[in-house]
Amino acid sequence: MNAVNNELQLKAEIAKDAARFMAYLSSEIKNRALENIAVELLNQSSNLLVANKLDYSAAEESGMNTALLDRLLLTEERLKSMARDVKAVASLPDPIGEIIETRTLSNGLVIQKKRVPLGVIGAIYESRPNVTVDISTLCLKAGNTVILRGGKESIHSNRALANLVCEAAVKSGIPDGAVTFIETLDRSIVNQMLKMGSHIDLIVPRGGAGLIKFVKENAVMPVVAGGIGVCHTYVDKDANLDKAVAIAFNAKVQRPTVCNALDSLLVHKDIADAYLPKIATEFARVGVEIHCDAISLSILNQLSGLKLVPAEDDDWGKEFLSLVIAIKVVASLNETLEHISRYGSGHSEAIVTEDSDTAKRFLEEVDAACVYVNASTRFTDGSQFGLGAELGISTQKMHARGPIGLKEITSYKWIIFGNGQIRP
Amino acid sequence: MNAVNNELQLKAEIAKDAARFMAYLSSEIKNRALENIAVELLNQSSNLLVANKLDYSAAEESGMNTALLDRLLLTEERLKSMARDVKAVASLPDPIGEIIETRTLSNGLVIQKKRVPLGVIGAIYESRPNVTVDISTLCLKAGNTVILRGGKESIHSNRALANLVCEAAVKSGIPDGAVTFIETLDRSIVNQMLKMGSHIDLIVPRGGAGLIKFVKENAVMPVVAGGIGVCHTYVDKDANLDKAVAIAFNAKVQRPTVCNALDSLLVHKDIADAYLPKIATEFARVGVEIHCDAISLSILNQLSGLKLVPAEDDDWGKEFLSLVIAIKVVASLNETLEHISRYGSGHSEAIVTEDSDTAKRFLEEVDAACVYVNASTRFTDGSQFGLGAELGISTQKMHARGPIGLKEITSYKWIIFGNGQIRP
Repeated sequence: MNAVNNELQLKAEIAKDAARFMAYLSSEIKNRALENIAVELLNQSSNLLVANKLDYSAAEESGMNTALLDRLLLTEERLKSMARDVKAVASLPDPIGEIIETRTLSNGLVIQKKRVPLGVIGAIYESRPNVTVDISTLCLKAGNTVILRGGKESIHSNRALANLVCEAAVKSGIPDGAVTFIETLDRSIVNQMLKMGSHIDLIVPRGGAGLIKFVKENAVMPVVAGGIGVCHTYVDKDANLDKAVAIAFNAKVQRPTVCNALDSLLVHKDIADAYLPKIATEFARVGVEIHCDAISLSILNQLSGLKLVPAEDDDWGKEFLSLVIAIKVVASLNETLEHISRYGSGHSEAIVTEDSDTAKRFLEEVDAACVYVNASTRFTDGSQFGLGAELGISTQKMHARGPIGLKEITSYKWIIFGNGQIRP
Repeated sequence: MNAVNNELQLKAEIAKDAARFMAYLSSEIKNRALENIAVELLNQSSNLLVANKLDYSAAEESGMNTALLDRLLLTEERLKSMARDVKAVASLPDPIGEIIETRTLSNGLVIQKKRVPLGVIGAIYESRPNVTVDISTLCLKAGNTVILRGGKESIHSNRALANLVCEAAVKSGIPDGAVTFIETLDRSIVNQMLKMGSHIDLIVPRGGAGLIKFVKENAVMPVVAGGIGVCHTYVDKDANLDKAVAIAFNAKVQRPTVCNALDSLLVHKDIADAYLPKIATEFARVGVEIHCDAISLSILNQLSGLKLVPAEDDDWGKEFLSLVIAIKVVASLNETLEHISRYGSGHSEAIVTEDSDTAKRFLEEVDAACVYVNASTRFTDGSQFGLGAELGISTQKMHARGPIGLKEITSYKWIIFGNGQIRP
C-alpha cells in the first residue's frame, strides 16, 4: 500500500509541476514532440510488437474472448495508423493562447479572455493500448500533463508505448513528467487517483459502462466521459421516403457497435404503411433483428424473410450495439418528443422530414448533444465534425457537450491590462 | 421524511418538465417576466416588509449578530435596488439561441453550435433574501428553471419573494413551476437535493465556506461556487511607485470583506525601502494591521504609528476579509511565482510593473481566474467586466472561470442540417 501511494503521489506532484511549464510552451515544441512520437512509433515497431505479444499471449491463455483480444492486438498496420493519427493531431491548430474575446472598459482597462490548458488530466482506461497514445498526444497538444493508468491486460504494451511517448516528448523539449504512466497494478490505485482533487484537474475514463459509472460516482474532481448513446431517428409524415430509408439503414448498419448508431426508429402513423416495408426489406438484407411495437408488427407481419420480435418494455431506451433495432409507430411529433425526452440518453437524435417547421420544432425541443435533420446520427464524431481528433463524446451539459476535441480539454483565464486603475 | 421527499420530488419533476419549455421561450416573454417582477417588488413592498419583519424579529430575539441581521434586513431602499437589478438583467442580451459557430462540411452538412439553457438549477443559500430574486431572475433570463432552497432564518421573506417572482413570471407566460421554492425546513432536504442528479443539472450554493464545502463534497451533479479569494499583489522592482501605492491601497481598503480584496502584498527587495514606508503610511491612515515578514518588519519598524505584527506561517494563503494585510519582501519574480502557485486560491492576482517582459511572464505563468497588470484586483466582478449581473466568481477551471454571468449558466447543442447525408 505504501509503495502504491508513493508512486502515484510522486508522479502526480511532478505532473502538477510540469503543468505550470506546459501552459506556455510554444506550439513548435509541442508539435515537434508529436512528430517525434509518430516517427518513433514506426522506428520502434518491432519492440512494441514484442511487448504486445506478451500481453496477447497471456490474454489468450487466460481465455479472453475474440473481440477483446482484437482490441488488445497491435500490428504493423495499426502502429502506422496510430502514427498517422498523431501526425494529424500535430497538424491541428494549437488551441492554447487563443484570445477568445477582448473588451475595453470605459476606464481604459483592457480585458481579455485567453484560452489556457486545464492542467493535469488523469486517464483511466481498459485494454486498448492505442488509448495510451491517443490521450497523451491530445493532452500534450492542448498543453496539459497526463497521468496514465491502463488496464493490467495491456501492461507491457502500455508501458512500452508510454515510455516511447515520454522519451520522444522530453527529447523535443516537453518537461519531464508531463506524460507519466502508473506502473503499479494494484486496483486501489484507481480509487486513490479519484480522490486527488488537488493534483488532478480532470479524469477521463475510457472503457466499459462499469468503469465509467464507478469513476463518476467516486471522483472528487470533474469527469468527462462518453456516456451511452440511445439514439432515435424519427421518420415524419412529411419525410422523403428514399432519404428516410438511406438514413435509417446507414445509422443502424454502417457500424452497429458504436454509440452513435441507431437504436430506436420512430415512424409517423401516416407514413408507416409506405415506409416500414421498404426499410424492413433493407434490414432483412443484412440480417437486422427488428423489435416491433404492435402496429409496426401488424404491418411487417405481412412480409416474409424478416427477423421480427415483439418489442418488450425495456427495448425502449436500450443501446443495442448490434444489428438489432426497435421500431415504434407514433401518432404525432408530440408523441415523438415525449418518447425521446423519456428514453433518449442525450447523445444523437435525428428527424427525417421535408417540413421546415417540423424540423425547427424538433431541433429546438430535443435536448441532446447532437440533433440532426435529414442526416445519419453516425456523423457524431470529432473528426467528422471537422474538430480533429476526439477524446470521446460527452452527453453531459457542463463544460463540453458532444465531441471532446482539443478545445474541450482547455480552460480560460481573464487577463486584464491596466495603467493604474483602481475601483471607485 | 415522506412529506419532505414528496414536496422536493414533486417540485423537481415539475421544474424538469418546465425546463423543456423554457428552452425555446422567446426573449420577449422572459424579459416581460423580469419587468413584471421589478414592478411587483415595488407594488408589494409593504407586504414584503411585513414578511421580513417576522424573520428579523425572530432573528433579533434569537440573538443574531448585527452583521447577519443587516444581511437579513429588507428596506424600501433595498427593494428599489433589487428592482433596479432585475431591470438591468432584463436589459441584457438573451444568451439563448446564439449560434456560437457554423461550419459547412464538404459533404454539404451544415453544423452549428447553438447556445441552450443548462436545464434545472438548484440554489441552496443562507440568510440573504435578495438571493431569491437574484438567482431566479438570472436563471429565467438564461432559460433555466430553478429550485430555491433558502435558509430558515429568512423563510418568511424568501417565501414572499418567491411567490412574487412565480406569480409575476407565470402571468408573463413563463411555465408554472419554472421557479419553485422549497417550503420544508428540514435540513435533510439539502442532502436530498444534492443526490437528485437526474433532475438537477447544476447546484449553486451561496453562503459561507461551510455550506460550500458541504455541497461540493456531497453533490452528485456539477457545482458552481464562488471559492475563497486569497489575492496577491506583486510590486515589481520596475513598478511605478505611485501606481503601486494606489493599487495596493484600493485592493486592500476599498471593500475589505469581499473575495477580490488584497490579502498578501509581495514586494521586490530592490524597491522595498522606497515603497514600503509609502504604502504603510497610507494603510496607517485607515487602521490596516500589517503582518510583516522579517525584512519588511525591519524596514517598517523605523516608522511610528503603524499596526505591525510579525507574520506567522499561516498568514500566507489566508483570506483576511478585514483590514489586515500580510507583507513579504521577495528576491525575484521567480520567488513571487512560486509563492502565488503555493498560496494562491486561483482567484485574482496582480502585478505592478512598467516592464512589459516581466508583465508578460506574470500573465502567462500565474494560474488564476483573473490576472492583472497595473490594476486593482477589486475589478474581478461580472458587472465591472461588462458581463452584466453575476451569480458569483468561479475559481474552478471546468465550464466557467471567473465571473459567472448569464452565458456561464448555459450549455450548447450541435444542430446539423442535412439533405439525406449518410456516412460512407
